[in-house]
Amino acid sequence: MELWYTEKQTERFGITAKIKQTLHTEQTEFQKLDMIETEEFGNMLVLDGMVMTTEKDEFVYHEMVAHVPLFTHPNPKHVLVVGGGDGGVIREVLKHPSVEKATLVEIDGKVIEYSKKYLPTIAGALEDSRVDVQVDDGFMHIAKAENQYDVIMVDSTEPVGPAVKLFEKGFYEGISRALKEDGIFVAQTDNPWFQKELVSKVHSDVKEIFPITRLYTANIPTYPSGLWTFTIGSKKHDPLTVEKSRFHDIETKYYTKELHTACFALPKFVADLIK
Amino acid sequence: MELWYTEKQTERFGITAKIKQTLHTEQTEFQKLDMIETEEFGNMLVLDGMVMTTEKDEFVYHEMVAHVPLFTHPNPKHVLVVGGGDGGVIREVLKHPSVEKATLVEIDGKVIEYSKKYLPTIAGALEDSRVDVQVDDGFMHIAKAENQYDVIMVDSTEPVGPAVKLFEKGFYEGISRALKEDGIFVAQTDNPWFQKELVSKVHSDVKEIFPITRLYTANIPTYPSGLWTFTIGSKKHDPLTVEKSRFHDIETKYYTKELHTACFALPKFVADLIK
Repeated sequence: MELWYTEKQTERFGITAKIKQTLHTEQTEFQKLDMIETEEFGNMLVLDGMVMTTEKDEFVYHEMVAHVPLFTHPNPKHVLVVGGGDGGVIREVLKHPSVEKATLVEIDGKVIEYSKKYLPTIAGALEDSRVDVQVDDGFMHIAKAENQYDVIMVDSTEPVGPAVKLFEKGFYEGISRALKEDGIFVAQTDNPWFQKELVSKVHSDVKEIFPITRLYTANIPTYPSGLWTFTIGSKKHDPLTVEKSRFHDIETKYYTKELHTACFALPKFVADLIK
Repeated sequence: MELWYTEKQTERFGITAKIKQTLHTEQTEFQKLDMIETEEFGNMLVLDGMVMTTEKDEFVYHEMVAHVPLFTHPNPKHVLVVGGGDGGVIREVLKHPSVEKATLVEIDGKVIEYSKKYLPTIAGALEDSRVDVQVDDGFMHIAKAENQYDVIMVDSTEPVGPAVKLFEKGFYEGISRALKEDGIFVAQTDNPWFQKELVSKVHSDVKEIFPITRLYTANIPTYPSGLWTFTIGSKKHDPLTVEKSRFHDIETKYYTKELHTACFALPKFVADLIK
């Protein structure tokens, strides 16, 4: 018998992956959580029927969320990750020696628990002494914070379930208050093929709040369309004018200092979404 | 009843697309040809069980094959397309006013016939007076040509069936002879996630023949991994040092003059394949 996991990424298109076994399945307080072992991509975390991360291609998303803002900020000391309970973004954040503290606020403790169990190469970084893990509502955390963080990274699911309010303008206003005066934030903002309106809307909202707003992309095979967007809002530092001397060496599999700039060169149809 | 087209892109991973109907299916002299009408991507040409092109995302591949070499060459007059019977690359080639003649050598006349019938926005350009369509073996055509073309584009299927010999070093040697003294060629060279060895091998072969060898990528949602590579071999002109004044305006949906350079900034794991 062959088992295949099939995900409808839209009502009309999807991916399918041969699996060895289902490792865990549970309806948590917030969402449906599935951990499956696939043949092509290794262990795969699925939330509400959407691939969140896989052992094989996780490095793209996690590196690109973390390193673009962290190399843009001249001295990031305190970093907040909203969501990201699998720990992958935190792992990348810790590669920057300037970071003294990395706070993770994940609403669903089960994501952390099962990532530690089944995705140890991703979640292992959560044990680091510089990391403060809080199982809490990221939206509320942001609402209470003021002038506190150098860099904030929003590593949410797609705007379904608990993540809906993480795509609202009020949330970005809260992020602006939670950041220090030269702070910078990044959010994953879905794909430009099937979610054109979302990409446009977030960019337009962020642009009303932050003086510097930028969109960049990366290739993630298990995400819809294979092309993912990230939106940056920055109070002072522009990711496109980083001094080259600032790029210290870190070990990566996707991010390079050349890509740091090149990833902002958008395909024309994507550039048109944020005009 | 719901109909879905599912393609195993590897033995362990694939895509699935909801379809309205099968428009045509035929075993030609060379390959299995299917034309299906999908809901998400419009009409889709499938050869030997692999998506070749779709109405929705075809522009990426066709623009990126054509415009990167054509803007690199200072005065491309005679262009050869090997394969590409759907006509999409030819359509893009004709956007360059310097081009006096575009020769298409497609081995399978049925691909041309059914592309004209079911993909008219792609294949329509084949009727242009500057185009010379030849139903013939591209490998043999190259073997006979000498000092004839400014730019050659290899728009083949993956290395299965009739396309196998289009990935051999002898073919690239033939291309070098078929090109003029400042000629340039590009070939689609599959994806770097599931076909690592192929990407490495082609680059290494081309590098032994051409003084300038470059790899670039583009995002194509219906192709395996969503990330596609293209290999350039050039006798004289480097795509990375094109004078900015040379970029005349053309209408595109993916290619931009910024992407012309940015598409050569490779993810680290891809750059490692061609070291």
